[in-house]
Amino acid sequence: MKIAVIGSGIVGQTIGTKLVALGHEVILGTRDASQLDEKKGWAGSLNDWLSAVGPGATVQTFAEAAAKGEIIINASNGMASLEALHMAGIENLAGKILIDVANELDFSQGMPPKSLAADTISLGEKIQAAFPTTKVVKTLNTMNCAVMVNPKQIDNGNHTVFVSGNDDGAKTTVTELLQRFGWTDIIDLGDISSARGTEMLMPIWLRLFGKLGNVPYNFKIAIG
Amino acid sequence: MKIAVIGSGIVGQTIGTKLVALGHEVILGTRDASQLDEKKGWAGSLNDWLSAVGPGATVQTFAEAAAKGEIIINASNGMASLEALHMAGIENLAGKILIDVANELDFSQGMPPKSLAADTISLGEKIQAAFPTTKVVKTLNTMNCAVMVNPKQIDNGNHTVFVSGNDDGAKTTVTELLQRFGWTDIIDLGDISSARGTEMLMPIWLRLFGKLGNVPYNFKIAIG
Repeated sequence: MKIAVIGSGIVGQTIGTKLVALGHEVILGTRDASQLDEKKGWAGSLNDWLSAVGPGATVQTFAEAAAKGEIIINASNGMASLEALHMAGIENLAGKILIDVANELDFSQGMPPKSLAADTISLGEKIQAAFPTTKVVKTLNTMNCAVMVNPKQIDNGNHTVFVSGNDDGAKTTVTELLQRFGWTDIIDLGDISSARGTEMLMPIWLRLFGKLGNVPYNFKIAIG
Repeated sequence: MKIAVIGSGIVGQTIGTKLVALGHEVILGTRDASQLDEKKGWAGSLNDWLSAVGPGATVQTFAEAAAKGEIIINASNGMASLEALHMAGIENLAGKILIDVANELDFSQGMPPKSLAADTISLGEKIQAAFPTTKVVKTLNTMNCAVMVNPKQIDNGNHTVFVSGNDDGAKTTVTELLQRFGWTDIIDLGDISSARGTEMLMPIWLRLFGKLGNVPYNFKIAIG
């Protein structure tokens, strides 16, 4: 399947690599597709990524990627996601599944960043409202990207990923993709407004990061 | 030890019962100590509770309870906690450990209630600011009260309780009490501002309640 990843930082690169390994054709969308030698934050340059991932991936603009992708993954910085998705083009997202893995984290006041999530609105809902025919599924936004694509590294996968969205068929497709990533404990929380709950996990996740550092960890819902 | 529980609903009654079973003297503080026959929301009346729990417990006003308690537990409705603690009396809380298990949940717009927690302020911090010499420790606010006092009922206790507070000695005392409750996976998140993280777990907890109902469940931090 052709999958567009909007956002070419560490999250987009990591998910893109996994999708290529699973046999998908990945179009990684980036803001300026002429800057492939520039280092991307915590990740390497896009030329380094293209060399590492091999055939099966290209880097293009947000709009080119979204036009070609049958499924779209929003892996952009949550504070800029609405802008990035508008650059991708409402017509290129129309009717498609959009997997939103982003969080709105404000780094402007230093570390740890402040989450903008609240029990009144979430980024997932904002995206769904801005792109009404797109089938937004919020998932994978409650862990770091290394865990997103390799859950088995923690307790053989005995921990949880959440899914929120208004379209049951889209959630089924996304659940199948999560299973290909190695996920077994997948909880459907309900409609896209339940993304408030998962986005609001960021502050405790960030506190845990302050204590645990780069050890892989995740939330598990333990049920009696 | 003499322990005051501020709040006589299902949470206060359940914690009080556990503390008596552990050999503590419990003074359960209630808003109107003359109304012991009135049913208390999801719990029974205070006379029923006193009969069930046996010697070791009394029901008194917030102020009487707080004056006698060596440790204070805030088990009041989070929306009314500051008022209840002011009724308990700043002089009766001064210098003591206050274990805050409450969440600010607004039920005025129907179910599920809306959490007021955000990554800017928490109830735990509001209480610490209002009672500056009191040693506020936020804990146990991320699960229902049956799980608070009997964690072994889920996966033999293999799930997590969090502790937030500014005073390390107070956190050590509270951790020992949690261990008496049966807790083994206890994570100290840091100072009282980290209560934002645990209070912000309520929206996903409530969504899970909508799916799972009265099955016992809790968060576990799985670490690789």
